[in-house]
Amino acid sequence: MRLRQWLFQNFREVSRLLSFEEVDFPVLESEALFIRKAGEEITQQLYNFEDKGGRRVVLRPEITPSLARLVMKQGKSASFPLKWFTIGQCWRYERMTRGRRREHYQWNMDIIGISKVRAEAELIYAIVLLFERLGITAQDVGIRVSSRKVLQAALDKFSIPKALFTKVCVIVDKLGKIPVDEIEKELTSLGVSIEAVKGIVDVLSLTSLADLEGALGSDGEAVADLKKLFSLAENYGYSQWIQFDASVVRGLAYYTGIVFEAFDREGKLRAICGGGRYDRLLSMFGGDEVPACGFGFGDAVIIELLKEKGLLPDLLQKVDCIVFPLDAALEGPASTIASSLRRRGQSVDLVEDRRLKWVFKHCERVNASRLILVGSSEWERGMVRVKNLSTREENDVKLDELDQFL
Amino acid sequence: MRLRQWLFQNFREVSRLLSFEEVDFPVLESEALFIRKAGEEITQQLYNFEDKGGRRVVLRPEITPSLARLVMKQGKSASFPLKWFTIGQCWRYERMTRGRRREHYQWNMDIIGISKVRAEAELIYAIVLLFERLGITAQDVGIRVSSRKVLQAALDKFSIPKALFTKVCVIVDKLGKIPVDEIEKELTSLGVSIEAVKGIVDVLSLTSLADLEGALGSDGEAVADLKKLFSLAENYGYSQWIQFDASVVRGLAYYTGIVFEAFDREGKLRAICGGGRYDRLLSMFGGDEVPACGFGFGDAVIIELLKEKGLLPDLLQKVDCIVFPLDAALEGPASTIASSLRRRGQSVDLVEDRRLKWVFKHCERVNASRLILVGSSEWERGMVRVKNLSTREENDVKLDELDQFL
Repeated sequence: MRLRQWLFQNFREVSRLLSFEEVDFPVLESEALFIRKAGEEITQQLYNFEDKGGRRVVLRPEITPSLARLVMKQGKSASFPLKWFTIGQCWRYERMTRGRRREHYQWNMDIIGISKVRAEAELIYAIVLLFERLGITAQDVGIRVSSRKVLQAALDKFSIPKALFTKVCVIVDKLGKIPVDEIEKELTSLGVSIEAVKGIVDVLSLTSLADLEGALGSDGEAVADLKKLFSLAENYGYSQWIQFDASVVRGLAYYTGIVFEAFDREGKLRAICGGGRYDRLLSMFGGDEVPACGFGFGDAVIIELLKEKGLLPDLLQKVDCIVFPLDAALEGPASTIASSLRRRGQSVDLVEDRRLKWVFKHCERVNASRLILVGSSEWERGMVRVKNLSTREENDVKLDELDQFL
Repeated sequence: MRLRQWLFQNFREVSRLLSFEEVDFPVLESEALFIRKAGEEITQQLYNFEDKGGRRVVLRPEITPSLARLVMKQGKSASFPLKWFTIGQCWRYERMTRGRRREHYQWNMDIIGISKVRAEAELIYAIVLLFERLGITAQDVGIRVSSRKVLQAALDKFSIPKALFTKVCVIVDKLGKIPVDEIEKELTSLGVSIEAVKGIVDVLSLTSLADLEGALGSDGEAVADLKKLFSLAENYGYSQWIQFDASVVRGLAYYTGIVFEAFDREGKLRAICGGGRYDRLLSMFGGDEVPACGFGFGDAVIIELLKEKGLLPDLLQKVDCIVFPLDAALEGPASTIASSLRRRGQSVDLVEDRRLKWVFKHCERVNASRLILVGSSEWERGMVRVKNLSTREENDVKLDELDQFL
């Protein structure tokens, strides 16, 4: 929990620095919110069931659809842009592997109402700020960036129907994860010609913007968006973290523009986080079309990475004062002292019925700063013995002068 | 969310003052953990279902059983006493009423490994500290205290079999909520004689320790425990918050000793929180018998109470700086400035493509402290205009001197 809270505090602090507001959504959601027919892994692994009232419900696999629904519900009263973040649990029904559990937490940041690439630039900046705070450098981690519009342009080149776009995205997202001929088979079974498949795979292998411009021409949105993003990255000062990689497509059906994912440069782990633009998600749910983008950042892979890099912090328990009555008859005064210290903001552990040796061990275990011994001879003079556990200094202190020793 | 986080921070701060450690448990639990046959409301309203793998699972209705299981799992490696707190979601499958939702959060504090009443005294002290921090006084709220041993003594007096104890507890907990003759009917259907029922109802109507001593004698554990608790309360300084009330039984089957609940003195709301000693819960799950007590404090009734008392805080959004390029060509410098301010810990909202009038309104809406205008004439001199939004002061400031104006 100390580790998790430390990580979450970093999520929250970065969100605050970017002036995002915290939101929350139910973890138990209507299944309908996640039924999509693009063959995504996330919808195949739904932790869904029927509740006692016959409702089809689901332990949410992701947060973005709930967010889209809330934006829709706010309707005209929402003052765009909305900059929202949330830290919430998500579930998948599948076997567990390293950095992939049935239940995990995800930090989401979303910007709703900004169509310009500025929004993506801010989101990627947030991810970089988080890495920096955790002690991770651009040597450890990179962020691959592309745009779904790259793939769209490739499909257009081969006159592949727009209706196939989402399914193609979900299939080609598996490039590098399953053999290429598997992917070719899946694509041709959709009706994509062998020639088009080869052409698509070629475009997706590009890793320089110049080559992309060569392949797609310089007048399309894909190239313009990406150039803009890299130029903004220069201004923000995080160019060394990002690289163009056309193979980045992401596995979620609803992305429409820029997509990105952070990866460990040693290639040992799954993607650390991922996100992108999803301009049509709200209209899919029957709302107005509102430009939006966001990312999800899980708590599992990042912890694996911090372990790998030796960056897990030493998070010790910390107690200000241990109060210990040396005599059972002094439990009353010990209560009064503990109560008064706590009202002054001190974290106090009140210990009794133990031997002094145990108490000293306990002080070490909970990393206590001071031990306050309530003994009868001192107490008769209205005093307690205060032992500073780092300096080993000891003082008999009057109750109303305790403050000076805290 | 601002309100919830404010409340949770108070939960956390009180837990820290008492040197409790934060723990967490899965919200999706095995149903078996909550199957009890005492007729409790909480088990009748289980949000349970079968998952895809045929497992009987439940969205947890309470946290204590999960906690007991974790303690058991730690076994000999646990160093007692454990002082644990958690803030987690719980579910019930029932109709919603005021202060009672299908889904809510609960703050739990538990002490495992202390058999003395000191543990209960510390828990009640934590609740009082929380009330004080929220601005609630002993005039607004009281804490009723009794012991299950009072009821046990009454049952013994009428030679009612020990096996009926739990069921009787769950039934008499409804005193004051449903008509007395309903309760009498339920008790007699268990096989309790009319005479015994009257005797039990009589004992449960006691509200002074002296009367209790009169009814049960002074040598039983019930009277001794309660006297000790009231004496410790004196030492802690919270006597004015607590009162003996034999009718407090609490609806959970597993309590064995002292039980308590906080209530609003106007009597408008349900119990604010409740808890007690549950010395046999661990052994019920097959572990060793370990003394334990704890409380659950929901987020719903307390918010209703704060509303009633006009104590809800004004929690405004807060942004340190709004950065606004007056010219689209200055989006690069604006990015650099925003990035540098954020690295210095400032929360920054970067706004563009708006009219100045909108920007000023936005500053008010998000409660911004400063507006930083990036205009071309200033920028040519390496400067930006900093507007302090509370003093209305304006300065043209060099970038490397910005710190002085933050």
